[in-house]
Amino acid sequence: MIFRQLFDAESSTYTYLVADETTGQAALIDPVLEQVERDLELVRELGLTLTHVLETHVHADHVTASGALRERTGCTVVGAEKGAGCADVHVKHGDVVRVGGLEVKVLATPGHTDDSVSYLLGDRAFTGDALLVRSCGRTDFQNGDARQLYDSITRVLFALPDGTFVYPAHDYKGRTVTTIGEEKRHNPRLVGKDAQAFVQLMESLGLPKPKKLDIAVPANRACGQLPATLAV
Amino acid sequence: MIFRQLFDAESSTYTYLVADETTGQAALIDPVLEQVERDLELVRELGLTLTHVLETHVHADHVTASGALRERTGCTVVGAEKGAGCADVHVKHGDVVRVGGLEVKVLATPGHTDDSVSYLLGDRAFTGDALLVRSCGRTDFQNGDARQLYDSITRVLFALPDGTFVYPAHDYKGRTVTTIGEEKRHNPRLVGKDAQAFVQLMESLGLPKPKKLDIAVPANRACGQLPATLAV
Repeated sequence: MIFRQLFDAESSTYTYLVADETTGQAALIDPVLEQVERDLELVRELGLTLTHVLETHVHADHVTASGALRERTGCTVVGAEKGAGCADVHVKHGDVVRVGGLEVKVLATPGHTDDSVSYLLGDRAFTGDALLVRSCGRTDFQNGDARQLYDSITRVLFALPDGTFVYPAHDYKGRTVTTIGEEKRHNPRLVGKDAQAFVQLMESLGLPKPKKLDIAVPANRACGQLPATLAV
Repeated sequence: MIFRQLFDAESSTYTYLVADETTGQAALIDPVLEQVERDLELVRELGLTLTHVLETHVHADHVTASGALRERTGCTVVGAEKGAGCADVHVKHGDVVRVGGLEVKVLATPGHTDDSVSYLLGDRAFTGDALLVRSCGRTDFQNGDARQLYDSITRVLFALPDGTFVYPAHDYKGRTVTTIGEEKRHNPRLVGKDAQAFVQLMESLGLPKPKKLDIAVPANRACGQLPATLAV
């Protein structure tokens, strides 16, 4: 299996390339519009065929490359049932997406947004904004729900083996990966907190609105292809 | 083995944590002064003991954390023979540094600077600024020598198996890793170029001086502990 982690510095977003070496089929998880050329160049240089884009959720902090990549490559865009209507395939908990010989299992992990899913591939979990390194996604817009996120993290993600690698959609301190075991022991938003304490914490964060929220969310519901009225 | 890649956004520097799970002994490769707290926190949370800092060369673009880490942990600072005088151990081509049960092999890869080494650990090569993703380090200061870098890349690094992962000291486009095989096929500074053409290319780059050159180089010769006359 080929695995690459890629970073968009402007939005601090991680994109992941996963590919089956035997068939050459590849998927990009959470690609960023501004990085289309970089990502397609890597796919080409590695001799791969992009067959899928997997979205962990409708993002509020960057515009997805899914629509642009679909136009360029004919790939299939995969999102959650409650996610972007423009996706070709809508997945739910327990579904499996096949990328060549790779089996990517879908885990419903709502709470950051109501459409958030994680993708499990072997011992790697791509958790989007549900679980971050020593943190988690905010829950104060896009039908976010702190109580739901608590359950997603503690009942779904923390049920994975401790050695599972957690590859998040973002990190703001240069950390690239963590594990389920590490987050159980050291995530300050979760350690020693029951659901109520977690909800209180999330409600007290007082975070500023993401800069790109008003553009990114409608754009991402259209797979990153901005409606004419919103394009700048 | 525990392996973590860490990023310093200001200088686009990658730091690597490698550790032997059995003994808990750990090394940081190319740590950055501003990230000391982050890196020590990770070492602590993973239950490790920092025994070594490995420097690939005297850096010109950021200040090393080696001295600060040595003060805080008593770790051994390892650099090349022609590198920083402040290092506790000076290594040369063919030497092996033992971090717990891990054997880190030293490869002399001068050319970016005259003290540049790469560290080989299993199928991972930490190449510093000698070999970057689709690029290589500049050769126009610190006794850089393009002809020497050509030999380091083509005779030393390209002699490693094609599947060897190349973990560079920097990337400016969010790419985190490459392989020897990929760089042989796709590195635009090397593909189809003999030594003479490579030297001509490197001499024509006309790059601006690194912002931190005048501070970083003397500081790094003192393991990041700035002489009083240079401290700001």
